[in-house]
Amino acid sequence: MGKSLQNIKLKHFILDVDGVLTDGKFLYSSEGKIYKTFGPHDSDGLKLICAHIQIEFISADKRGFLISKKRVEDMGFKIKLVSENNRYNYVKEYGFKNTIYMGDGIYDADIIRDVAFGIAPKNAREEAKKYADFITENNSSEGAVLDACLEIKKKFIN
Amino acid sequence: MGKSLQNIKLKHFILDVDGVLTDGKFLYSSEGKIYKTFGPHDSDGLKLICAHIQIEFISADKRGFLISKKRVEDMGFKIKLVSENNRYNYVKEYGFKNTIYMGDGIYDADIIRDVAFGIAPKNAREEAKKYADFITENNSSEGAVLDACLEIKKKFIN
Amino acid sequence: MGKSLQNIKLKHFILDVDGVLTDGKFLYSSEGKIYKTFGPHDSDGLKLICAHIQIEFISADKRGFLISKKRVEDMGFKIKLVSENNRYNYVKEYGFKNTIYMGDGIYDADIIRDVAFGIAPKNAREEAKKYADFITENNSSEGAVLDACLEIKKKFIN
Amino acid sequence: MGKSLQNIKLKHFILDVDGVLTDGKFLYSSEGKIYKTFGPHDSDGLKLICAHIQIEFISADKRGFLISKKRVEDMGFKIKLVSENNRYNYVKEYGFKNTIYMGDGIYDADIIRDVAFGIAPKNAREEAKKYADFITENNSSEGAVLDACLEIKKKFIN
Repeated sequence: MGKSLQNIKLKHFILDVDGVLTDGKFLYSSEGKIYKTFGPHDSDGLKLICAHIQIEFISADKRGFLISKKRVEDMGFKIKLVSENNRYNYVKEYGFKNTIYMGDGIYDADIIRDVAFGIAPKNAREEAKKYADFITENNSSEGAVLDACLEIKKKFIN
Repeated sequence: MGKSLQNIKLKHFILDVDGVLTDGKFLYSSEGKIYKTFGPHDSDGLKLICAHIQIEFISADKRGFLISKKRVEDMGFKIKLVSENNRYNYVKEYGFKNTIYMGDGIYDADIIRDVAFGIAPKNAREEAKKYADFITENNSSEGAVLDACLEIKKKFIN
Repeated sequence: MGKSLQNIKLKHFILDVDGVLTDGKFLYSSEGKIYKTFGPHDSDGLKLICAHIQIEFISADKRGFLISKKRVEDMGFKIKLVSENNRYNYVKEYGFKNTIYMGDGIYDADIIRDVAFGIAPKNAREEAKKYADFITENNSSEGAVLDACLEIKKKFIN
Repeated sequence: MGKSLQNIKLKHFILDVDGVLTDGKFLYSSEGKIYKTFGPHDSDGLKLICAHIQIEFISADKRGFLISKKRVEDMGFKIKLVSENNRYNYVKEYGFKNTIYMGDGIYDADIIRDVAFGIAPKNAREEAKKYADFITENNSSEGAVLDACLEIKKKFIN
């Protein structure tokens, strides 16, 4: 919370998918993982800031990757499959100082702590919220990403 | 809230679909947007007032339009695809003075402010609820539209 | 609440389906109503009392009737399609004095008031809960019917 | 709560599926039970402890068994179909003294009471929570199993 944000030039906004853009849940049939639940408002939020910051999604969910990919690409963004163990180093390569990160799980906690601005949805694990610079007012899939985008716009763009 | 409603002849009740008739969420498979969640009570509510006011739905959701269309037409009403940027002017053409509008998002806020009677579901964005003349007791897809219809009946029909 | 239950011989337990056995919501695709959400515990509850009282389900949902029918019959019970307007008289024919009724909507309110013992789920419409002799501790599809069965067992069977 | 856990060597962690790994709900079409909802975090939790304790799932849900089986096996674990009436004796054969059990329903209550360490999700039936040594902070399908795994790790492994 006490991170100095002056003179920081934020170039990247990296978001986890499950539990950030979705409610984290997924529907299984006897054939496997078939559906994920996405919500309203978030696409509107990303449009508000995408001209000013590079937006990218990452996911560690191999089985549901094609679902996440379809949704993220439908919104006009890119997504990469990055395993939980590689996630920290993957984001580090973008430069923590240049990066806003939004995640919800225990593997996101250290990234949220180390990036320039770390965001967690209201319904994230406590482990992730502990280090967050900003916790959204709404739950994931209920507008958490729009909340994050409005905060980014207010703080770093306007 | 202080709008004078005397001598107003309300002709139109225009409702957004996502987040009003649905909970705003949708299920994605690797093939795209497949399902939306609708709820109970709302169809009963619309039946109570449809003889007295012209009901119409609008939606900006291109990808899910056939889903919304199927549900709205199954209930016996009409729906139009209106983009978020055109929404304000679209409703304006009906005459704000003649119109009740119900919406939940940031693009609905100005319409809710300017129509004769603006309604927002309990779980709408704060931006939309700020200007609402009536906020429903129940969340969207849990009876918000019935709440709205009962209020309209009490205030403008009976 | 003050109804005298002495000397009453309860023969029938009639339950609405949507909003009682389900959470009231349903999934629509562009093809129509495809899925309803049922929950745990309720089947266990019905098994506890079905040897002592005749259990039957009714539903006014024409479009989702085959879904409700499949679930109710999978649990071993019968279901009838009864329109909202005919519901009151339908239950009346069983004899209000002999009947426990559980419902959640505005069309259930008068039945709940007039039967020997009226039950509403915690998340029912206020209109229905107003007349209920028993309001369940859990929401519909989260154990409301088990709650109802335990109450019936305690009060009328044991 | 006052159970002495000293000198206990815990070998087995047995979990119910519905209401523990899922939210207990399931989607029905006119064809029957098709989908169950699973959630995030739980697979991460099980990975944290699976080298130290034998993990096994049981389920009494015959109609949804292939769904549960697919999910549990996708996570790398085993599942057995055990009817509600046989559940108590099934777990007893593992030796209550060697076993951690996690369940949510009325048929789980006695097992939770009798095992070395009994766990119930936050949203379990009161009957199950009454005897639990540990009640999770999160609801089932929202991290309850991760909560349980972290508690097991803290108490019995580290």
